[in-house]
Amino acid sequence: MEIKHDIFPSERIIAYSDAIFAIALTLLMLEIKIPESGPTEKNDLFRSLLLNWPSYISFLISFLIISVIWFNHHTMFHYIRYVNHPLMLINTLLMLNVVVIPFCAALLGRYAAEGNRNSMIASLVYGSWITLGGIPFNWLWGYALKHDNLLAEGIMKKELFNIKRHFIRGPFLYLQCTLLALINSWASICGFTVLIILYFLPASLWAKKGCIT
Amino acid sequence: MEIKHDIFPSERIIAYSDAIFAIALTLLMLEIKIPESGPTEKNDLFRSLLLNWPSYISFLISFLIISVIWFNHHTMFHYIRYVNHPLMLINTLLMLNVVVIPFCAALLGRYAAEGNRNSMIASLVYGSWITLGGIPFNWLWGYALKHDNLLAEGIMKKELFNIKRHFIRGPFLYLQCTLLALINSWASICGFTVLIILYFLPASLWAKKGCIT
Amino acid sequence: MEIKHDIFPSERIIAYSDAIFAIALTLLMLEIKIPESGPTEKNDLFRSLLLNWPSYISFLISFLIISVIWFNHHTMFHYIRYVNHPLMLINTLLMLNVVVIPFCAALLGRYAAEGNRNSMIASLVYGSWITLGGIPFNWLWGYALKHDNLLAEGIMKKELFNIKRHFIRGPFLYLQCTLLALINSWASICGFTVLIILYFLPASLWAKKGCIT
Amino acid sequence: MEIKHDIFPSERIIAYSDAIFAIALTLLMLEIKIPESGPTEKNDLFRSLLLNWPSYISFLISFLIISVIWFNHHTMFHYIRYVNHPLMLINTLLMLNVVVIPFCAALLGRYAAEGNRNSMIASLVYGSWITLGGIPFNWLWGYALKHDNLLAEGIMKKELFNIKRHFIRGPFLYLQCTLLALINSWASICGFTVLIILYFLPASLWAKKGCIT
Repeated sequence: MEIKHDIFPSERIIAYSDAIFAIALTLLMLEIKIPESGPTEKNDLFRSLLLNWPSYISFLISFLIISVIWFNHHTMFHYIRYVNHPLMLINTLLMLNVVVIPFCAALLGRYAAEGNRNSMIASLVYGSWITLGGIPFNWLWGYALKHDNLLAEGIMKKELFNIKRHFIRGPFLYLQCTLLALINSWASICGFTVLIILYFLPASLWAKKGCIT
Repeated sequence: MEIKHDIFPSERIIAYSDAIFAIALTLLMLEIKIPESGPTEKNDLFRSLLLNWPSYISFLISFLIISVIWFNHHTMFHYIRYVNHPLMLINTLLMLNVVVIPFCAALLGRYAAEGNRNSMIASLVYGSWITLGGIPFNWLWGYALKHDNLLAEGIMKKELFNIKRHFIRGPFLYLQCTLLALINSWASICGFTVLIILYFLPASLWAKKGCIT
Repeated sequence: MEIKHDIFPSERIIAYSDAIFAIALTLLMLEIKIPESGPTEKNDLFRSLLLNWPSYISFLISFLIISVIWFNHHTMFHYIRYVNHPLMLINTLLMLNVVVIPFCAALLGRYAAEGNRNSMIASLVYGSWITLGGIPFNWLWGYALKHDNLLAEGIMKKELFNIKRHFIRGPFLYLQCTLLALINSWASICGFTVLIILYFLPASLWAKKGCIT
Repeated sequence: MEIKHDIFPSERIIAYSDAIFAIALTLLMLEIKIPESGPTEKNDLFRSLLLNWPSYISFLISFLIISVIWFNHHTMFHYIRYVNHPLMLINTLLMLNVVVIPFCAALLGRYAAEGNRNSMIASLVYGSWITLGGIPFNWLWGYALKHDNLLAEGIMKKELFNIKRHFIRGPFLYLQCTLLALINSWASICGFTVLIILYFLPASLWAKKGCIT
């Protein structure tokens, strides 16, 4: 096999990205602290755990969002077989987005339930960051579609453009959920919850019908 | 090789799951804090370490439980060679279960020794979460068995159904150990300890006789 | 395939290094704590987040530096197909450098904005550590170039020496940025920022022209 | 390829172990906290960093010890091509040893410099744990040597028994360093330092002469 100097097999960038996804997923849980029982709060572990509910919701949404990003990354690299430096750069920006999600999730979990201006700020920061993630994501796929030498051979381009149309809607839907936070932070969180469930379920239904993502 | 749009090779989901398993295993240890010596507690590091014993037991059980889940995941994906979207979704739910185990382990380690209602709650939360993990686990294997196109070619289905029968008992045994916590939290912990050792040892003995776990 | 006893395929050292890179990248974010709102500081989450800006800058530079090291590690192991014990030892020293970067980043983020002697010390420690990383890095590539049996077959050595010339400049540029901290810690941080952006962008431009980073 | 039900290819257990090694290595650093500057301690970041020296030494020794374990694991699985359940079980015990090392390292770093009974206890715990790691380690290699069906074909058994002789000395040397802690905790730490450097350097020298570690 001849060695190329400007494009590389995609195996290693996939393994590297997978490790980053896996760690980000697991660190989400690290942000949830177990309740510390003080001397005056005997017998209330159940209540302490329940009072932590905003953290659990934030954890759950973030877990599913990172999983969806991984699903889509998985789909993209099913077709991308080679990477060049610009694509590695764009993937780095996507990874930058992913590793910051646990921070945003911790912020949301900590402040979502306060019901004051801080809740709105936490929701806006969270939603904006998720929305921003759409930029490197769509950039990556758009770049790959324009470089045939990076793609697997013998694929129907039409299918890939269908995926592109599907991907490009994501950030706009996320933006709408983010803007809901200006009205009420819970409206925003509910929006994300509904969106992520819709995203997940049809994916499985569509796959059954033989369509992608 | 023709590229399929609805099923994917299983390599990547395996690597991704392995990373999540490995991180969850390692984070278990992060939850155990080293004793801080204050000015008035000179010379008692040994006692401080010993007093931490519920954490060590919780760590050990959880380490073995995650290892058993990994063993079984390893067995399942020995036969599953392709994944589709529903299977990836079910695997995501299994991973959700795994990443929360370190939180439950920390909870158990912190409260198991108090001997009050909090101990019971911690044991119930821990046991319930482990038991719940049986749902995506058995769902995953059940789904795979119904989709021949995901399985390796030339395997005897009868063997796979034996594995299924073996897997399906797990959650029921875990549930019994969980319910023991209603009587006494240590009864529950001992139940899990015995169960996990039984799970581990026969696995190695059976393998010697040429059977599958 | 005959099994060699003194050289090993590079797959495993690559996977191992990738995992270390990925974890170091993700731990960078763990060092940034979310603001804790006390009772007297209502409504100032936005300000608290903004006040944390030195941490974000330190995170961003460190994320990009680790990514650049990964890019270059990726380039080197595109050509290195076998490893022997000395090469594994040198790679271990490189990994030692990488895993300590999150500590240095936390130090810089914590002290950069104080504007006193501590800022200078934090910048010097940070810069020195990044500069030191150049030693195992260039050692690794230099060692590989001298051992043809470790390299892929059929590569033009001239290209590899071009890469060497490119790599060797890195530590000297980093050293200059580090020394800037003796004048002002922000001058040093700006230097690193400019350097890392220059490093990143041309990489993508050069790749377009068919040259290697 | 026929699918076997009782032995599995070793790829996945290698990837899984690598991830655990990589995380344990990186978590070592998490245990070192950056100094917090209080209002009365201006301008002493340099001194605070220096005062932390026992943590750095503990980190460094532990980093090198985990690296040596990885090196040897790498060597073993260069020859082990298939795994069965007992071998997976023994590997799990080895991983259990590895993930607890960061805890022991934190303990040593925190208490080594106190120079009292706590230092001795910390050194004894650290040394004992490292020594104990020799059990699953040698068990793993011994088990593999007795099962030809797990090993790569066409290897000279004599070489493998040389490796065994080399491995078996490890725990005894570690034990001696551990017992030194009964005299003085620094004697023990120095012993480990010398041992680990000797372990590392000859490995590279021997490899040059064509022998295996």
